[in-house]
Amino acid sequence: MSIRIGILGYGNLGRGVECAVRQNPDMELKAVFTRRNPADVTILTETAKVCPVSEAENWKDELDVLILCGGSATDLPVQTPRYAEFFNVVDSFDTHARIPEHFANVDAAAKKGGRTAIISVGWDPGMFSLNRMYANAILPEGKDYTFWGRGVSQGHSDAVRRIAGVKDARQYTIPVESALAAVRAGENPELSTRQKHTRECFVVAEEGADKARIEEEIKTMPNYFADYDTVVHFISEEELKRDHSGIPHGGLVLRSGSTGWERENRHLIEYSLKLDSNPEFTASVIIAYARAAYRLSQEGAAGCKTVFDIAPAYLCAKSGAELRASLL
Amino acid sequence: MSIRIGILGYGNLGRGVECAVRQNPDMELKAVFTRRNPADVTILTETAKVCPVSEAENWKDELDVLILCGGSATDLPVQTPRYAEFFNVVDSFDTHARIPEHFANVDAAAKKGGRTAIISVGWDPGMFSLNRMYANAILPEGKDYTFWGRGVSQGHSDAVRRIAGVKDARQYTIPVESALAAVRAGENPELSTRQKHTRECFVVAEEGADKARIEEEIKTMPNYFADYDTVVHFISEEELKRDHSGIPHGGLVLRSGSTGWERENRHLIEYSLKLDSNPEFTASVIIAYARAAYRLSQEGAAGCKTVFDIAPAYLCAKSGAELRASLL
Repeated sequence: MSIRIGILGYGNLGRGVECAVRQNPDMELKAVFTRRNPADVTILTETAKVCPVSEAENWKDELDVLILCGGSATDLPVQTPRYAEFFNVVDSFDTHARIPEHFANVDAAAKKGGRTAIISVGWDPGMFSLNRMYANAILPEGKDYTFWGRGVSQGHSDAVRRIAGVKDARQYTIPVESALAAVRAGENPELSTRQKHTRECFVVAEEGADKARIEEEIKTMPNYFADYDTVVHFISEEELKRDHSGIPHGGLVLRSGSTGWERENRHLIEYSLKLDSNPEFTASVIIAYARAAYRLSQEGAAGCKTVFDIAPAYLCAKSGAELRASLL
Repeated sequence: MSIRIGILGYGNLGRGVECAVRQNPDMELKAVFTRRNPADVTILTETAKVCPVSEAENWKDELDVLILCGGSATDLPVQTPRYAEFFNVVDSFDTHARIPEHFANVDAAAKKGGRTAIISVGWDPGMFSLNRMYANAILPEGKDYTFWGRGVSQGHSDAVRRIAGVKDARQYTIPVESALAAVRAGENPELSTRQKHTRECFVVAEEGADKARIEEEIKTMPNYFADYDTVVHFISEEELKRDHSGIPHGGLVLRSGSTGWERENRHLIEYSLKLDSNPEFTASVIIAYARAAYRLSQEGAAGCKTVFDIAPAYLCAKSGAELRASLL
């Protein structure tokens, strides 16, 4: 029998989850829950239903795992604790500073309902966190570096769009090559915000807008751009659509450390991702952890977990013996 | 109280484990067991004892984890099952084809004694296996690539040393850059043995030896070199000692895969290691898994496990809450 999956929230991430389910023969998408009018939402999976979010709880015996695809700012802090009482759930909550609080809320709900919840799944938090943790465990004396990009930052793109005279915009975060080279060379540099990443903006200005003023507003915007070297390009709406409609992202996690009686030997651990589609990759990680949530729940686990708490074998459809024979 | 560690076998790996224990404040090296005369073995840790291997079993209540540092060909197939009955053990058994058999033997012994054993720990098998598994779980439709090097292959160096007229030798395995570039470009190439790695040998010939014959014997040696492009350099004993006395290694695990309803988006996951000392890095991974073996045993686990079966949080001295706050 397949693992029966539900999706709550059908934006880029929800669609990514739908595609990921299709790539995993042991899973089946049963339902998509939306806040929009279900009649207005067209999904790709012919065999799944589109339902109003208000009906989600009626499905509690029909789904093995519910994937929560809302945003971290306002959706997930409410949705994950709410649905963790009735379903095994996975979310991609990514507000790093609020993870402890979110964990506590979800843990209480999942324990109350006897369900398994896995939060903060994706690539950062997610695979990047795992790689930071493994590398720290292996090389206790060393230094961590995380670089993001080259990729689209939704938050920074939105910030540019809010400037008067900007019709549309796309912002790319880019690691500084020389900083990366210094890390890889084992120099253990201390890097400022400016030294690690640059920002590149592609902006469509409204007709007659003052481009010099827009550029100045972007480059001096506190928190978002002021601490970075930022390049601004003004392009046409057609160019934006043609060249910048994808949602690529990626990045690197490095740990540079030393071993030996006198710390005489150096080592570099590097993990990197180059992603054509940020939401589809995030969804693919989520679906692997949905398998884990289902299996843990079958074993009687209850409560909230993160990627740190899940033995890797739970993610793979193969048995332990198959994994040992083929991948170890 | 510290986790009390024993080392069985004091070669390069055993010494690496000793150094790694020193970098982990929650651990303490108590004893080194050797087949040599203990009086002839000088260790670095002043507070630990050197004992004959015949006395190891007397220590079964004095050690939390015994690290087995013998070779995979003849030592570990006997030692790991033998000691898994009396101790929590970790080994670095690396004969990939014989892992299922080794697992079964160790599992039976560990279950009999109520102990936790973790086998095949290091970087390949070990961290490379983990990365293959995570990447396969995330991108079910894709292609795996593992490259080794640039690094010293002990087995190939030994093979060259066995040729008549060779006084000493060091062999490096080197990934072919163009193959790696094709993988990173998402071309999913089919790569032959020759296309993936080249081999470079530094050879000290005995006085008067026929160098052309030695070079020919190396390049045509079945299994070891015949399927590769091999470069042979003749150097002096002094040069070998000066430039090639380290044991560096490393490599890369890549998975290139696609997602999307029509598989329209491509992704690349890459994990790489650059290691000054192969045995010290292997030892550092082993010591992190020794912590896991100890904790699992405290929880009442019994039997054999691999890196696939261990939740990452067990490797780190930090608590779950600390990990979530600092590394997630």
